[in-house]
Amino acid sequence: VNFELQPVTEPGRRYVALAESHVADLALWRVAHDKDGTFVAESIAALKGSGLLAANVPRELGGLGNTSIHDQMVALSRLGRGDGAVAIAANMHAIFVYFFARDWRAARAAGNAQAAEGLGELLSAIGRKEATYCFFFTEPGTDVMHPRAEVTRTDGGWLLNGHKSFVTLSEAATTTRASFKLVDDRGVAHLGMALFPIDRTGIEIKYNWDALGMRGSGSHDVVLHDVFVPEGDVVLLGEYGAYSEFFLVSAALSNLGLIACFLGVAEAARDEAVRLVTTRRTSGGKLLAESPAVQHTVAEMEIDLAVCRAMLARTGQAANAFLAAYAPGAAPMAEMHELNRDFQCTKWVVNRKAIEVVDKALQLSGGSGYLSRSVLSRLYRDVRAGPFMQPFSPNEAFQYIGKVTLGLDPRIE
Amino acid sequence: VNFELQPVTEPGRRYVALAESHVADLALWRVAHDKDGTFVAESIAALKGSGLLAANVPRELGGLGNTSIHDQMVALSRLGRGDGAVAIAANMHAIFVYFFARDWRAARAAGNAQAAEGLGELLSAIGRKEATYCFFFTEPGTDVMHPRAEVTRTDGGWLLNGHKSFVTLSEAATTTRASFKLVDDRGVAHLGMALFPIDRTGIEIKYNWDALGMRGSGSHDVVLHDVFVPEGDVVLLGEYGAYSEFFLVSAALSNLGLIACFLGVAEAARDEAVRLVTTRRTSGGKLLAESPAVQHTVAEMEIDLAVCRAMLARTGQAANAFLAAYAPGAAPMAEMHELNRDFQCTKWVVNRKAIEVVDKALQLSGGSGYLSRSVLSRLYRDVRAGPFMQPFSPNEAFQYIGKVTLGLDPRIE
Amino acid sequence: VNFELQPVTEPGRRYVALAESHVADLALWRVAHDKDGTFVAESIAALKGSGLLAANVPRELGGLGNTSIHDQMVALSRLGRGDGAVAIAANMHAIFVYFFARDWRAARAAGNAQAAEGLGELLSAIGRKEATYCFFFTEPGTDVMHPRAEVTRTDGGWLLNGHKSFVTLSEAATTTRASFKLVDDRGVAHLGMALFPIDRTGIEIKYNWDALGMRGSGSHDVVLHDVFVPEGDVVLLGEYGAYSEFFLVSAALSNLGLIACFLGVAEAARDEAVRLVTTRRTSGGKLLAESPAVQHTVAEMEIDLAVCRAMLARTGQAANAFLAAYAPGAAPMAEMHELNRDFQCTKWVVNRKAIEVVDKALQLSGGSGYLSRSVLSRLYRDVRAGPFMQPFSPNEAFQYIGKVTLGLDPRIE
Amino acid sequence: VNFELQPVTEPGRRYVALAESHVADLALWRVAHDKDGTFVAESIAALKGSGLLAANVPRELGGLGNTSIHDQMVALSRLGRGDGAVAIAANMHAIFVYFFARDWRAARAAGNAQAAEGLGELLSAIGRKEATYCFFFTEPGTDVMHPRAEVTRTDGGWLLNGHKSFVTLSEAATTTRASFKLVDDRGVAHLGMALFPIDRTGIEIKYNWDALGMRGSGSHDVVLHDVFVPEGDVVLLGEYGAYSEFFLVSAALSNLGLIACFLGVAEAARDEAVRLVTTRRTSGGKLLAESPAVQHTVAEMEIDLAVCRAMLARTGQAANAFLAAYAPGAAPMAEMHELNRDFQCTKWVVNRKAIEVVDKALQLSGGSGYLSRSVLSRLYRDVRAGPFMQPFSPNEAFQYIGKVTLGLDPRIE
Repeated sequence: VNFELQPVTEPGRRYVALAESHVADLALWRVAHDKDGTFVAESIAALKGSGLLAANVPRELGGLGNTSIHDQMVALSRLGRGDGAVAIAANMHAIFVYFFARDWRAARAAGNAQAAEGLGELLSAIGRKEATYCFFFTEPGTDVMHPRAEVTRTDGGWLLNGHKSFVTLSEAATTTRASFKLVDDRGVAHLGMALFPIDRTGIEIKYNWDALGMRGSGSHDVVLHDVFVPEGDVVLLGEYGAYSEFFLVSAALSNLGLIACFLGVAEAARDEAVRLVTTRRTSGGKLLAESPAVQHTVAEMEIDLAVCRAMLARTGQAANAFLAAYAPGAAPMAEMHELNRDFQCTKWVVNRKAIEVVDKALQLSGGSGYLSRSVLSRLYRDVRAGPFMQPFSPNEAFQYIGKVTLGLDPRIE
Repeated sequence: VNFELQPVTEPGRRYVALAESHVADLALWRVAHDKDGTFVAESIAALKGSGLLAANVPRELGGLGNTSIHDQMVALSRLGRGDGAVAIAANMHAIFVYFFARDWRAARAAGNAQAAEGLGELLSAIGRKEATYCFFFTEPGTDVMHPRAEVTRTDGGWLLNGHKSFVTLSEAATTTRASFKLVDDRGVAHLGMALFPIDRTGIEIKYNWDALGMRGSGSHDVVLHDVFVPEGDVVLLGEYGAYSEFFLVSAALSNLGLIACFLGVAEAARDEAVRLVTTRRTSGGKLLAESPAVQHTVAEMEIDLAVCRAMLARTGQAANAFLAAYAPGAAPMAEMHELNRDFQCTKWVVNRKAIEVVDKALQLSGGSGYLSRSVLSRLYRDVRAGPFMQPFSPNEAFQYIGKVTLGLDPRIE
Repeated sequence: VNFELQPVTEPGRRYVALAESHVADLALWRVAHDKDGTFVAESIAALKGSGLLAANVPRELGGLGNTSIHDQMVALSRLGRGDGAVAIAANMHAIFVYFFARDWRAARAAGNAQAAEGLGELLSAIGRKEATYCFFFTEPGTDVMHPRAEVTRTDGGWLLNGHKSFVTLSEAATTTRASFKLVDDRGVAHLGMALFPIDRTGIEIKYNWDALGMRGSGSHDVVLHDVFVPEGDVVLLGEYGAYSEFFLVSAALSNLGLIACFLGVAEAARDEAVRLVTTRRTSGGKLLAESPAVQHTVAEMEIDLAVCRAMLARTGQAANAFLAAYAPGAAPMAEMHELNRDFQCTKWVVNRKAIEVVDKALQLSGGSGYLSRSVLSRLYRDVRAGPFMQPFSPNEAFQYIGKVTLGLDPRIE
Repeated sequence: VNFELQPVTEPGRRYVALAESHVADLALWRVAHDKDGTFVAESIAALKGSGLLAANVPRELGGLGNTSIHDQMVALSRLGRGDGAVAIAANMHAIFVYFFARDWRAARAAGNAQAAEGLGELLSAIGRKEATYCFFFTEPGTDVMHPRAEVTRTDGGWLLNGHKSFVTLSEAATTTRASFKLVDDRGVAHLGMALFPIDRTGIEIKYNWDALGMRGSGSHDVVLHDVFVPEGDVVLLGEYGAYSEFFLVSAALSNLGLIACFLGVAEAARDEAVRLVTTRRTSGGKLLAESPAVQHTVAEMEIDLAVCRAMLARTGQAANAFLAAYAPGAAPMAEMHELNRDFQCTKWVVNRKAIEVVDKALQLSGGSGYLSRSVLSRLYRDVRAGPFMQPFSPNEAFQYIGKVTLGLDPRIE
C-alpha cells in the first residue's frame, strides 16, 4: 500500500508507532462516549500516559523530539482510525506543543536565553505529563479572524469577556489560549492572544457539547466573564481581521492535523467495509467481494483514499520545507498565501473525499451499516465534522483559492 | 417554483393538502422521538385520525378516493418535509391500500363480486380507521427476492418461521403481510405471501429499532415462531427468486413513495438553509445570502432539487400510465423491466441528490448545523436511509439498468 | 423507453415524425461538411422542402400548425440525433416562426387586424418555403444584454453599425433580425431590434466559421456597415442592459430548443456506443456488453439521459403552460424570473450531462472512437458547444439561479 | 506553486530544464500539423538535436545520465505544455532508453560484460543521436495482453505477421520493438518481443493517422507481412495473456510518462484560461477575474491540478523506490500488483481531471475558445486521448483496482 501515509523522520516513526499502539483501545472506549455524549477521558489519559501528547517535546525536555509537522499529521491520522474525537482533541493540544518547541529551537538558535527558558518550562511541564492545552478560538456568529471576545483595561492588565464555542478538549485541559479583540490606546484594533490556566476565575465551561458526531470530544461552549489577563501575557498577532502569519501558517498547519484525523476516519470505514465484503455472502452463497459492483465501489474508495493520501503527503512535506525555510515571523506574505492556498486545496479535497469514502462504505454494508451499533453509522456522523473547521469554510475556500491564483487581493467577501 | 411536485388529480389535490396540514406538527413531534428512538405514535395517530391513511380508500368506502400513484408520491413527499420517519411509515401502509383499491376496482370491472367484496371489507376497515398495515419483508443476510422465512405444512394450513427486519410501523399496525418461501409438494419453490393480524400467536416484535436516523419509525425486528397461516390465506406470487410483477411493479411503486419521502427530507433541509442565510449576517454585517459563494451553493441545491422533482414527476406519470394501461397480471415482462429500469434510474438519482442537498444545507449552516439541536443534523441522519431500500441497492441498480438497456438477462449476479 | 421525449399535441406528433424522417440523411450528409467546415446546405434545403421549417406556421397559412414549444423541442432533439449543426440552425429559424405565429394568434384574438395581417404575411412566406430567418445577436467581447452594435439617426430611419458573431444559418437565411443599442433623443439607451432582408446593403457576411464542432452550421461573423433601418421597422424591447420579457422568456425558450439539440447529440452517441458493445467482442470472444464494467457505464449513460429527458419534458411543459397563461407582454417580472431560473437549471444540467454521455460513449468505444472517421469523435466536438450558448454562461447561471432563489436582485455581477 | 511537479535529482533537473526550453517552439510548430494532421517532424528533430531524447543515456555514453523515472515524468509533462503529440511521441522513445539504461546498469553491477556491451551499443547510438525508437504494440480489436500478431518458424528465425495500430512516432523511428504471440514447439503460447530496424522488409507503415487530437503524433497503422526476426532476437516475456513484470511494471511506467503529458496539456489550458480572464473585461469594464464565478472556476481548476500533481509526484517517487528496491526480474508478483494498482489509481484520476481542467478552461473562455484558432479547442481534442491508453481502459481499471485491493485474482473479465 504505497499511498499510505508514512513518517519521514526517525522521531516521527516513534510517534506514529505510539499512535498505532492506541488505536484498538480508542475504538473500544469510544462506543459508550459516542452513545451518551460524554468526554473520552480514559482515551486522553492513555495518550497522556504513554507520552504521545508529549511527542513534540524535545528529548532533553522529556518528549519524543518530533520536529516534523508531516509526521505529526501521520500520527494523528492513525489516532483517527481509532476515534476521530480523540484525534481532533489530540491535535488541538499537539499543535501548541509543536509551535512551542519550534519557538524554543528558534530562541536557542538566536541565542535568546530568556525566551528559550520560558518555552522550555512550558515544554517540560508537558514532558512531565502535567500540562494539557486547549484553545478558546471559535465563536458563534462570527469567523475566527473576527473574534467578538474582547479585552478591556484594568489594573495591571486586561479583563476578557466573550463567548467561545467548539472548545475541544476543554474537560481535560490544564491550560488554554484565548483569542480576542484588543483595541489599543490609539484606537487601533488588534488580534490578541493569551495563555492562562483553565481554572482562572471567570471561566465558565458550559458542559453542553451535544452534536451529530465527534460526541466524545468535549467541545463545550465556554463563557468568559471578566477573566483577568496580566499585561505581560498578551501577545498581539497583527491587525484585527487581517491576514497574518498566525492565520496563514499556524492555523493552516493546525488544520493539517485535523484533516488527517478525517483521513483516519475514512480509513477505518474502508477497513470495515472490506472486512464485511470479504466475510459476508449473498443469498446465493457467493462472497460479496466477488460481485463486480462491490469491486467497483471498493475501487472508488481506494482511488479516493489514494487522492487524500497523496495530497496530505505532499502538503505535509511542503509544510516541513516551509517551516525549515523560514524562521518564525520571517516568511513573506506572498509565500504564506501560496502555502495556505495549497493547504486549502488539500483541505477541501480530503474533507470531501473522506465523507465520500464513508458513504461508500455504508453502501457496501447493506442495511446493517445504518444501525446504531455499526461502527459505520458512527463514522458517518463523525466524518461530516471536517468541512466545518475554520479557516475556511468550503464556501470561502473556493473564493480564496481563486483569488490567490489570480493574483487578486485574497480577502473574503 | 415550477419544478415543485404537484398533484394531477382532484382527489390527489385533497390528499396533498391533507398531508401539508400535518407538516408542522410532525416536525414538532419528531424531536423527542428522534432523541430517544421511540415510535412516532402521536404522528401516526394524527394521520389516521385525519383520514390521510385512508386516502386511497374509495369514497364510497370512506376514503378520499385517490387513484393516482403519482399524487400519493407527492403527498408522501410533503409528509417527508415534516418527518421522514412518519413519511416512510405512512408509505408502508399506503401502498397496501393503493393496491387493495386497485384490485377492488379491477374486480368490480371484471364482475368478480366475491373478490370485490373481500377487498371492499379490507378497504372499509381502513376507511373506518380501524386497520393499519405493515409488511414483514426484509431479512438480514439475504435480499428480498430470496426470503429465508419459510412455511411448512400443518393441519389446515402452514406454519411460518423466520426472522424479519426493518419492519417499519410494526408498533402501530393491526395487520401485516409476510413474504416467505413455500416449497410445494412437487418440490418447486415459490414466493408466498399472506395477510394476518399482527397479534397472531408466534409473532414476536423485538422492539429493538435503534438506528442512525429514521429513529421514530419503529422499524423493529420481528421473529416468527410457528405462526399459523390458514391454507386459503396463502398467495403465490411466482417462482422463488425470479422476477415477477410483484417485484417489478409493486415493489418498484412502493419504493416510488419511499424516495419521495427523501425528496421531502431534502426540501426541508433546503428550506432551513435558505432561512439561515437570509437571516444571519457575517461579522461584517452582510446578510450571508449576499455572498457569491452562498448563492453558488444555493444554486447547486436548487438544481439538485429540480433534477429530483423532474424525475419523480415523470416517473410518477409513467407509473400512472402503466397502471392505467395494464390490469393486474396483464403487463408483459419486457414492459415491466422497462418500467423498473426507469424507476431504478430515478431512485438512484433522487436518493443520491437528496443526500447531497442535505450536505450542502449543512455546508451553508456553519458549525451550528452540526449540533444535535439543529434540524439539519437530524435530516443528515435521516436522508442516508434512502439508498438502503431494496430492490435494488446502488451496487445492484447499475447492473440491472445496464443489462435491461443492453437487452441482456437482467438477473443480478 | 418511458423517459424518451414524446410530443404532447397532434400537430407536434407530425412535427416530430417529420423530424425523424430526416435523421438518416442528416447523419450521412454531415460527414463531408464536418470535415471541410462547409455549410450543410442540402440538409437545410431538405428541411425547407419537407415543410419542417414551416411546422410552426398555422395550417391555414401553409404549415403544420404546431403551437407547442414542448413539441418543437422534441422535434429539434430528433434532428440533433442526425446532425447537431443542422438542429441548431433549424432552431434559430424555428423560434422566430414560433413567436410570429404566437403573436399572430394573439393579434387575431385581440381583434388587431393590421398586426395579424403583417404577421400573416411573414408566416405565409415561410409556409410557401420562401423565407428563412437568422439572427444577428451575439457579439465578441460582450454579452447579449449589452450589444455594442448601435444605430444612429439618418433620414427616414437609422444606420446600423456593428460586428456580430456566431450567426448560425447565415448562408441560407433570406431575412434576419438584429439586436442593437439605440440611444433616444432624451439620451436613454434601449435594446432595439429590427427585421430586414439579409442582402441589404452594408451587410458583410465574413464566411469565416471554423470551429471545433458544429462545423456545418455556417455560424459566420457578420459586419454591419451603415445598414439602413427604416424608422418603422425598429422595435424597442426595453431598457438597454435590463431584464425584459425578451431575455427572460424569448431568449430562454430559444435556448430550450438549443439544449434539446444537444440531447439529440447525446442520444446519438449513446446509440452508437450500445451498437458497438453489442456487436464487438473481447480477445476472449465475449461480447463487450457482457462485461460488468460495460454494463455499469451504460447504466451511467442511461441515468444521465433519463435526467436530461425528465428535465426537458418538465421544462417544456412548464413553458407551454406559461405561454398559455400569459399573453405577450402580460407576464409579471417575478414569474418570468421563476421561469428563467427553472430553465437555467435545466440548461446547465442538460448541457453538462450531454457532454458526459458522449464522453462515456467514447470510453466504451476503445481507441476506435478517437479516430476522425468515428461518429463519436464528431459528437465529442459538437456536444461541447452547448455551454457557450447565452444567456447564461455556466459562470453566470449559478449566480442567477442563486439570486432568484434567495429573492435578491438577479442582476449578474 | 508548491504542488507543481519538480525534479528530484540533479540529472533530472537538467532534463526538465531542457524540456522547458523547447516548450515555446513546440507550441508554435504544432499549429500547422494539428490542422493538416501531419507529423511534427521539426519538433522531434529539435528534441533529438538538443539531446533531450538521449536524456536517459548514461553520461559516459553521451547522455544526461538521468536515472529517475519520476524526473522523466516531470520532463514529459513540460513537453506536454507545448504539444501533447510531441510529448507522447517522446515518451514512446524515452521509456525504451530508460529501460535500456537500467538494464545496462544492472548488467554492469552483475558483472555481465556481454549484456552491458550490447546495451551500451544501443545507448551509444542514441547518445550519438542516430537511433530513435517506436513500439509496435497496440492492435485493433484486442488488448495489449493478447496480441494477434504472431510469429511462425522459418529458417534461422521467425516470420512475423500482424496488424499494429497507434504506432506513435513511426515516421521518425529508426528502430522498433514489436510484441507478438509465439507458440513454442510444445504448443505453449508466449508473449514475445523483438527489436529490429523499422525499414526491414515486410513492414508497411500505412501513413493513415487521422484522429480527433494528437494529430501530429504520426500514430499510424503498421502492417507486418512476413517480417523476418532472427532466432536470437526474440525475447520471451512470459505466458501469453498472463500478468508479468513487463505488463505490471514496464507498461505501467511507460504510461506514467504518458499521463504526465496530459497533465502538461491541462496546465497549458489552465495558463491560457488565466491569461484570458486576467486580460479581458466584461461589457461593464470589469476584469473577468474579478467575477466571483470566474474565481470559483479557477479554484476548481487549481484543486484539480493539485490533485493530479500530488498523485503523480507520489507515484513517481514510489516508482523510483520500486526500481531501486528490485533488480529487473526480482520483484515479487504481489508487489508488482500493488505498484500497478496504485498506478492505475493515479492514471484514472489524472486522465479524468486533465479532461475536466480543459473543460473548465473552455468554460472560462466564452465562445472564443470554441473556435479552431483557439489553443483551447486544440487542447480539448488532445486531452481526450488519455483514457484510451492501455492497460487499462477505465472500464477495466476499476475492476483491477477492486480485485487487487480485495485480494482476489486480478484477471480482468
